[in-house]
Amino acid sequence: MMKAILLAGLGFAIAAPAGADSLVDNVNGMTITKDGRVTRFTGLVMTPDGRVVKLLGAKDKRPDRLDWRADMKGRVLLPGFIDAHGHVMELGFRALELDLSDAKSLEEAKARIAAYAAANPERRWILGGGWNQEAWRLGRFPTAADLAGLAGDRAIWLSRADGHASWANAAAMKAAGVTAKSVSPPGGRIEMAGGQPSGVFVDAAQDLVQKAVPQPLGKDRNTAFLRAQAQLLSDGITATSDMGTSLDDWLTYRRMGDAGNLRVRIMSYAMGVDTAVRVGGTGPTPWLYDDRLKMGGVKLYADGALGSRGAWLKAPYSDAPGQSGQGFMADDVIRNLMSRAAMDGYQVAVHAIGDRANAQVLGAIEELALTYDGDRRWRIEHAQVVDPADLSRFGKHGIVASMQPTHATSDRTMAEARLGQARLAGAYAWKTMLGNGATLAFGSDYPVEKPNPFAGWAAAFTRQDASGQPFGGWRPEEAVTREQAWWAFTGAGAYAGFAEKKFGTLEPGQRADFIIVDRDPTLAGPSDLRATKVEETWVGGVKVFERK
Amino acid sequence: MMKAILLAGLGFAIAAPAGADSLVDNVNGMTITKDGRVTRFTGLVMTPDGRVVKLLGAKDKRPDRLDWRADMKGRVLLPGFIDAHGHVMELGFRALELDLSDAKSLEEAKARIAAYAAANPERRWILGGGWNQEAWRLGRFPTAADLAGLAGDRAIWLSRADGHASWANAAAMKAAGVTAKSVSPPGGRIEMAGGQPSGVFVDAAQDLVQKAVPQPLGKDRNTAFLRAQAQLLSDGITATSDMGTSLDDWLTYRRMGDAGNLRVRIMSYAMGVDTAVRVGGTGPTPWLYDDRLKMGGVKLYADGALGSRGAWLKAPYSDAPGQSGQGFMADDVIRNLMSRAAMDGYQVAVHAIGDRANAQVLGAIEELALTYDGDRRWRIEHAQVVDPADLSRFGKHGIVASMQPTHATSDRTMAEARLGQARLAGAYAWKTMLGNGATLAFGSDYPVEKPNPFAGWAAAFTRQDASGQPFGGWRPEEAVTREQAWWAFTGAGAYAGFAEKKFGTLEPGQRADFIIVDRDPTLAGPSDLRATKVEETWVGGVKVFERK
Repeated sequence: MMKAILLAGLGFAIAAPAGADSLVDNVNGMTITKDGRVTRFTGLVMTPDGRVVKLLGAKDKRPDRLDWRADMKGRVLLPGFIDAHGHVMELGFRALELDLSDAKSLEEAKARIAAYAAANPERRWILGGGWNQEAWRLGRFPTAADLAGLAGDRAIWLSRADGHASWANAAAMKAAGVTAKSVSPPGGRIEMAGGQPSGVFVDAAQDLVQKAVPQPLGKDRNTAFLRAQAQLLSDGITATSDMGTSLDDWLTYRRMGDAGNLRVRIMSYAMGVDTAVRVGGTGPTPWLYDDRLKMGGVKLYADGALGSRGAWLKAPYSDAPGQSGQGFMADDVIRNLMSRAAMDGYQVAVHAIGDRANAQVLGAIEELALTYDGDRRWRIEHAQVVDPADLSRFGKHGIVASMQPTHATSDRTMAEARLGQARLAGAYAWKTMLGNGATLAFGSDYPVEKPNPFAGWAAAFTRQDASGQPFGGWRPEEAVTREQAWWAFTGAGAYAGFAEKKFGTLEPGQRADFIIVDRDPTLAGPSDLRATKVEETWVGGVKVFERK
Repeated sequence: MMKAILLAGLGFAIAAPAGADSLVDNVNGMTITKDGRVTRFTGLVMTPDGRVVKLLGAKDKRPDRLDWRADMKGRVLLPGFIDAHGHVMELGFRALELDLSDAKSLEEAKARIAAYAAANPERRWILGGGWNQEAWRLGRFPTAADLAGLAGDRAIWLSRADGHASWANAAAMKAAGVTAKSVSPPGGRIEMAGGQPSGVFVDAAQDLVQKAVPQPLGKDRNTAFLRAQAQLLSDGITATSDMGTSLDDWLTYRRMGDAGNLRVRIMSYAMGVDTAVRVGGTGPTPWLYDDRLKMGGVKLYADGALGSRGAWLKAPYSDAPGQSGQGFMADDVIRNLMSRAAMDGYQVAVHAIGDRANAQVLGAIEELALTYDGDRRWRIEHAQVVDPADLSRFGKHGIVASMQPTHATSDRTMAEARLGQARLAGAYAWKTMLGNGATLAFGSDYPVEKPNPFAGWAAAFTRQDASGQPFGGWRPEEAVTREQAWWAFTGAGAYAGFAEKKFGTLEPGQRADFIIVDRDPTLAGPSDLRATKVEETWVGGVKVFERK
């Protein structure tokens, strides 16, 4: 059943297993190394199980014995992209729910909510997300009152673009039992207006309503996964970190793998230590399904996000003087959790947006590195706002700075308001991270941003958004080179997930994960690069996406 | 790590994969069919992936080209046994905990509890089970007072042999917050004495204390599984139903399968519908790990057990006139759960011990069979005490009576006391089940009874216990033949789990699951049969156990 859906959706053919190598020939092929060197080739020889045997130049002799040969007619071939920070199931669920990320104003959002509610009469809860009051220039959070009358007596529950706040109508709050007496939980905040909950719930406070949302059924999860996977493959992403895999997410990935429907490679980071222990028992799982799935790490959260003022800052927000955000855990608590994960051999990945949260996590790493002194690759996710005094600390203990170029272009105006000019010196500091010797891995944080890696790539070396703003780039001193960004979106993403011996480049022995695109990304200007179309995506030597 | 433990524990060698068939030769081989015919052979040819190609007679020519040949020197080869009803993880945990199943008296039990507590000073909870006040001729349940002083201030929590009652000391009740004001939950009973909880908790009331027991760690689960598997393989069991797989059980089986440590075949029945839905999504999992694991069904409970008077009877217990046991669910509730499972394609297996519970489940099946009219193989687990008027209802709708011969011999005296002579006519009615056209599948209900299938086999055609009691057999009119019992412990167990196309016989195409034993079970007398030693166990053509 699922297989039928997948095959129908993607329309690819799987080559029959055979004993001889195969050849993808007549390509304008290129791959990148850590030191920024671009290797060019015209043919790619693969084993029957889809690993790279060698890259051939135009004058190299082709193998005599081949199982099959594909003629790519001179098109451009690149290594598949790796998104170092995404949320696979959320991407899928978002695709099935109401998407407000393109809404330009509160009025437009309201119209779309009403239309979606009318088009989906069987849904008792209108779920969705992507709203951003900053983009609407609303000057305030939206409220439950704004939602009145849009969906009759049904509940409405919509998450902010960054996932760190959600917006409820009166029916949702009623179903969840939220009243004027409800108390903000640690690490969260109920927005209030006139002594009543206003309808917006920040960070941990989202749980107060979220727990009342009906759980998705197994078939919903399967459908959501397949939607997410189709999106990633069509964007040229052949491997991704999944930053916060719940037990039900994991069971979904296993169903897909068991049924032969898992195409994209998933480096899974368990949502918390308990999930990791339940799944892995005594440590990370092995690589499963021909290197398509492994739970190798644990995701923890040190703080919230900037947009909702949940990021934990050393000094108050510039646009909200009384607030500095919240740390989710005390120093000893987060350190103990990180230690528990590391003791069992899990990689540790901690979300840290604000400068105080980053300092907390850096401190914990420095202390734990005394005990766990091997190749640990401690990951700090986002590493978004860092006190300049702390930046050099990223260069030690093998820390991975897992950052998202499109956040900088999306957040620019908001970040300036929240932080003020002085504090921007250590914000979105990609080049400084590299210069300090940190491993820089790039991702999109989908579904917060769209997963399209070409947008991230262009933003990384221009510090401009899709419309070319601002002229000259936003704090252009933190741009990286085109090659550095390419590596951060490919090989570095594999390294950040302890997968560099499996995939990430097109060197011999690696899984043959590659894409065919309609232009040469080393020659294209930024807006041209953003417009790149992925024509085919191959994972492990098998074509899993072809644009029709 | 786990692999090292397993290999060290079992000491077997895995044949290298190769292209040619292999031969297990010079055996006194025999296998059984549903109609009771015994096929004899001297050689068994297998494919490289461990399926039976053909059985050879003494005069049949051996294949010319073989990858390897094993000479069994004339020893007896039988199909591996299948236990249609067991509890894999409980068997393993029981092996790591205090085992009181051999204790002959309360005094002996107390001495062993004290010794175990002294030998395991690091355990904050003394956990174990296997006690049976009937075997102790105590005439009452044991009490918390009986446990006073045996383990200092540590908690003691011990389950009854049938798993339907547990015994706590004062520290355990205190840790769980049980007081004189605690109320028996639906489907359970707190035993009281002098207005205080006496220390014994029946059926659903066990949860009141169980919830306070620390959860086992992942490594504990792995160890428990490997102990259980080693036990099953050494008893000649190559496949088993797992009757009530929790999510953590399932995750453990997957860890074992992923690491290549899963040897025994597990037909998993999820503990309740929610577990099935979380694991399977839209229906049963596929067969995993070369037909070693599948979650194909759901286990439900209609009532408790006879020993603890939790079985649900039409008329009161003969030895407790005011009690008739409890049904766990109302008619419509259990029917709806069965329907929900069947709708998603899961096989339904319902525990029913008392005649009223059996009638309830039969009624539900008869109603649901109108809707779900395919090959459903509705299972009734235990089918232990059936109103004679209901017995013929087992012959319709493809019902499987999943029964345990050793229960009859263990329960005999207790069953007579609980039920009285008149009600025994429909109890443990194996031959009548077969005569009515039900599928009869045998198991042990391990760890309630020991998994050794030879004990069950001998009990099935003698209706006598290990000491030959009673003379002539207990209600011998319900004995089945030696061949019927053999089939019920092999092919019928596979059929009962929808696995008959995978394993259960040694016909061509089946997985080569077989055992080498030290005598011919078709010629051995009952006590001789019980004494059979399993010398080797092979699963899928690979030797996974050898007695040293």
